[in-house]
Amino acid sequence: MNVKPVIAIHGGAGTIVRHAMNTDVEARYHAALAEILSAGERVLAEGGSALDAVTEAVRLLEDCPLFNAGHGAVFTAAGTHELDASVMDGATLDAGAISCVTRVKNPVLAARRVLDVSDHVMFTAAGAEAFAREQGLEFVEPSYYYTEARYEQWLKARGTSRTMLDHDAATFAFASSNAPSEDDPIDPIKKFGTVGAVALDAHGHLAAATSTGGITNKQAGRVGDAPLIGAGCYANDATCAVSTTGTGEMFIRMLAAYDVSAQMEYCGVSLEQASNDVVMNKLPRIEGRGGLVAVDAKGNVVLPFNTEGMYRGYARVGEAPVTAIYR
Amino acid sequence: MNVKPVIAIHGGAGTIVRHAMNTDVEARYHAALAEILSAGERVLAEGGSALDAVTEAVRLLEDCPLFNAGHGAVFTAAGTHELDASVMDGATLDAGAISCVTRVKNPVLAARRVLDVSDHVMFTAAGAEAFAREQGLEFVEPSYYYTEARYEQWLKARGTSRTMLDHDAATFAFASSNAPSEDDPIDPIKKFGTVGAVALDAHGHLAAATSTGGITNKQAGRVGDAPLIGAGCYANDATCAVSTTGTGEMFIRMLAAYDVSAQMEYCGVSLEQASNDVVMNKLPRIEGRGGLVAVDAKGNVVLPFNTEGMYRGYARVGEAPVTAIYR
Repeated sequence: MNVKPVIAIHGGAGTIVRHAMNTDVEARYHAALAEILSAGERVLAEGGSALDAVTEAVRLLEDCPLFNAGHGAVFTAAGTHELDASVMDGATLDAGAISCVTRVKNPVLAARRVLDVSDHVMFTAAGAEAFAREQGLEFVEPSYYYTEARYEQWLKARGTSRTMLDHDAATFAFASSNAPSEDDPIDPIKKFGTVGAVALDAHGHLAAATSTGGITNKQAGRVGDAPLIGAGCYANDATCAVSTTGTGEMFIRMLAAYDVSAQMEYCGVSLEQASNDVVMNKLPRIEGRGGLVAVDAKGNVVLPFNTEGMYRGYARVGEAPVTAIYR
Repeated sequence: MNVKPVIAIHGGAGTIVRHAMNTDVEARYHAALAEILSAGERVLAEGGSALDAVTEAVRLLEDCPLFNAGHGAVFTAAGTHELDASVMDGATLDAGAISCVTRVKNPVLAARRVLDVSDHVMFTAAGAEAFAREQGLEFVEPSYYYTEARYEQWLKARGTSRTMLDHDAATFAFASSNAPSEDDPIDPIKKFGTVGAVALDAHGHLAAATSTGGITNKQAGRVGDAPLIGAGCYANDATCAVSTTGTGEMFIRMLAAYDVSAQMEYCGVSLEQASNDVVMNKLPRIEGRGGLVAVDAKGNVVLPFNTEGMYRGYARVGEAPVTAIYR
């Protein structure tokens, strides 16, 4: 076929504070995004499936401490880590998801095992961990997820009863008195740190995967959009593959990922039109902030967001990865 | 306004085995459905909101041992009970959901509290129970959910490693050798026991609520469609309110509840056309079995299902409830 396989990834969106960014930090983010894109590109170049490419890219995003998933996940209000992930195969509409795991090294691999071997689509909490253990997945001590930068974010955030989902005046006042650290130039109070990937493979199949540590200082047990099929993750060969990042609650209420597909299927609009409507029109109506990455069966890639920035990039097989942070 | 407020409910769908049904059992189901519809109708007749009407109807369905939610919930493979519920307000697109709770008497009331007071949309497992406790909701011992009929179902089902989600020959052979009990005329191996309600109130607002004990002999931690916004529950004043019941995994993958709304919004089709396409066309493509109840802003009510039966009914304010079991 003539369409080049392609992968796109994101590493979270939010109010990126430019003055807190320096050349060295920027370079580290660009390098991490490019390296992970190259790994996904290799899977696709070797004839691997879109499903394998997105799983591998999200696994690497989880392992990278710069992003809020796996190692580097944010802290809950209880000072713990709770991780969510999902994956969907556009060829079969099969899906797998896990929420609220605390000991699985790579949540996306657990979601992938649910897709591969289980009659079920979603497992949560202790049942999800039991499933992952039966499947022989790697477990870690909770301290594995710890990073200094996330711990400092949490110490700041827990001074209030608020999570960064709040956008009222008090929170903005609080946020402005707590400058983001140099290691994480997205304002910690307004950062939406999901990671995700979408891909089109040489066989014309699409897939999407999403993973997150949630939001800093979230109440224990909170489930965002990342593990919810149709909200944070969706793939269908007939339309598109989508992975989202943002204020998860609004993405759930808008079925943000599936709505891109539904608009393409039912209105006959392009991937770009559908994605822009969801990100720039429907989500803002309920104060939803964030963005998404998406790819269609023709290899079109879009990476829209309605925040100041989103860590993102894409790579077509045989071409150098393209990465970006700001608008 | 000229449109009469209306409520519709369901109590699960599946392969209802007619020869196991007798007049007395049928009468008990019809009476329970009519009583619960009348209670929802009273809320609407007094000018109450659709949100209050569906919450009350689902609370009563949870309390009734005939239905698989709350008291009367099915057993997991571990011999425990894990309950899920969700609720959505079509006026605001606000939503609340909880999954995998084991001690909350009425899961739908916990979901409603999430909608009413939390910035979050969904809580799971221990975090969901902690939230419910903070909110002062009633807790029960796990034995509260126990009923003799469900325990006998579980004893039969755990003889295999299968849940009733399987539809292959071996399962059918097994099912036929285990006749359903007289107290529960739906074949226990092929029963999909969610409960739910949708309503239109005098102010023109729509709402939906769904609750379940899941599927008999499910693996611990499994989350079905019932607590997932867009899969098992959706409401939007601009289109419709939907509550589903069936093989939850397929309803998740098809975003069954939201898809009815999306087809109405994007294709301009009627509630009936959209619901029929989802239940009779899209779900069967991936072997999805079950049904849904839905209402639109004009007061149209539909109750389609692709199984042998679905416990269901509706009531318009000022009129007698209409209930049904078979096709």
